[in-house]
Amino acid sequence: MIQRLAVVGVGLLGGSVAKAVRAQGLAGEIVGVGRDPGRLAPALADGTLDRVTTDLATGLRDSDFVLLAAPVRAIESLLPAVWRAVPDGALVTDVGSTKAAVVRTAERLAAGRPIAFVGGHPMAGSEQSGYGVARADLFRGAAVVLTPTDATEPGPLKALTEFWEALGARVSILDADAHDRAVAAISHLPHLVAYALVAGVARVEPGALDLAARGFKDTTRIAASDARVWEEIFLANREALGRSLDAFRAALAELERLIAAGDGRALRAALDDIKTRREALR
Amino acid sequence: MIQRLAVVGVGLLGGSVAKAVRAQGLAGEIVGVGRDPGRLAPALADGTLDRVTTDLATGLRDSDFVLLAAPVRAIESLLPAVWRAVPDGALVTDVGSTKAAVVRTAERLAAGRPIAFVGGHPMAGSEQSGYGVARADLFRGAAVVLTPTDATEPGPLKALTEFWEALGARVSILDADAHDRAVAAISHLPHLVAYALVAGVARVEPGALDLAARGFKDTTRIAASDARVWEEIFLANREALGRSLDAFRAALAELERLIAAGDGRALRAALDDIKTRREALR
Repeated sequence: MIQRLAVVGVGLLGGSVAKAVRAQGLAGEIVGVGRDPGRLAPALADGTLDRVTTDLATGLRDSDFVLLAAPVRAIESLLPAVWRAVPDGALVTDVGSTKAAVVRTAERLAAGRPIAFVGGHPMAGSEQSGYGVARADLFRGAAVVLTPTDATEPGPLKALTEFWEALGARVSILDADAHDRAVAAISHLPHLVAYALVAGVARVEPGALDLAARGFKDTTRIAASDARVWEEIFLANREALGRSLDAFRAALAELERLIAAGDGRALRAALDDIKTRREALR
Repeated sequence: MIQRLAVVGVGLLGGSVAKAVRAQGLAGEIVGVGRDPGRLAPALADGTLDRVTTDLATGLRDSDFVLLAAPVRAIESLLPAVWRAVPDGALVTDVGSTKAAVVRTAERLAAGRPIAFVGGHPMAGSEQSGYGVARADLFRGAAVVLTPTDATEPGPLKALTEFWEALGARVSILDADAHDRAVAAISHLPHLVAYALVAGVARVEPGALDLAARGFKDTTRIAASDARVWEEIFLANREALGRSLDAFRAALAELERLIAAGDGRALRAALDDIKTRREALR
């Protein structure tokens, strides 16, 4: 049971955590911290939050559980102030889309003051953003990756695992670099490809967009994602993203080679193999 | 009003047309033609078809409206036999995913015997196939492209337009080459990219597939499409697909350049522009 939960950044993810915690009565009090009081107001008005503040130190006072739910570079730059403001004994976690930089910064700060930090990443985003689309059941069935280090104590890791499981998530443990490589492949690469698909089609056949059916729309849905969030993610994870892009380009080139060669039999075998892999994900 | 509709190939598209025609009473009789009697049986059993046959000439006898709904290369190879079997005065159309080759073949045949053929393509596929997923409302709100030539008479084109509109579709007219370029961009390119995404991720981060969330799943849904159908489409439309691929690659390279340069401002502007284009499709 959490005494006082502080949610820093009350958008889709932070707002959904607050709603889920409220719905299940997992915290005595929920405090929302944000830069813009107007954006915090709806979550206060609907009873999801007990208090709101634009001052980080005020928001973190007497909290025993701090969830950082800003875009990933904002989380990184907030960490020193979090370390100054958070009470002894509190558990600090985040929902940032890349983990290596945040975890490294937290480790450096923990060397100065031993605060329990465990990085986290719920795989439950959307091309939509903001508190307006937050949902108490957003994490039901979702994968959440936690990224402890050698210095992480078992107690906070166990508490955080139980927290996400209470929200309906499946928790996986990865080190931060392995996490960043994994999300480069299954999240950052598809986003970049979806953006490029829309841009490429708009360039070569702009009129054809009127004919777009469900295939194109589903494939490019995430190209409507928030540009600020994805600028930060692409830059923060550019190395791992580069490796995933190379693998994608190699796979695309192999299919193109079969098409150019008119090798129907090998092409069908390759597509069938991919279809089987994709169907395994359902 | 159609006297006798012959549907050649009773899968997702042919089956959905038959169901929609039946539901609206647009034809006196519906005959299904296929290679495998076992696959035709369900549509006969549920009352969608009045008769079934594996013999094309038998199926087309006395028909006044013929819908060719096999995969695209099968349609092309069926056309000479269709021309021999179809009654004078019948309207012949198809639902093939590429149009230039089919339309050219039909024109050549029409020079020998004047049968009214108008190429068509309903943009309403699915990664699933077969009569089992056919639906009477599949074409409601879908775009259907018709590809008349200079030789097409106004009467058959008008009749076919009204036919698809009666099924709830929005009809667009394009010449066959323009159609093939358009679908290369908005359908064939995204399919090829989705296949390559699954293959690339399976190569670079196979374990990460367990963490895949809605973004990856939606982006790659169409990579579970039927391999035979897509082998044919990719080969039939390889030239136009090549041009779309070039545009996609250029757009991807431009985004990569901004990421590699760490140019957050320009990257965000580019992503914002793409987001706006994508949102316009909703």
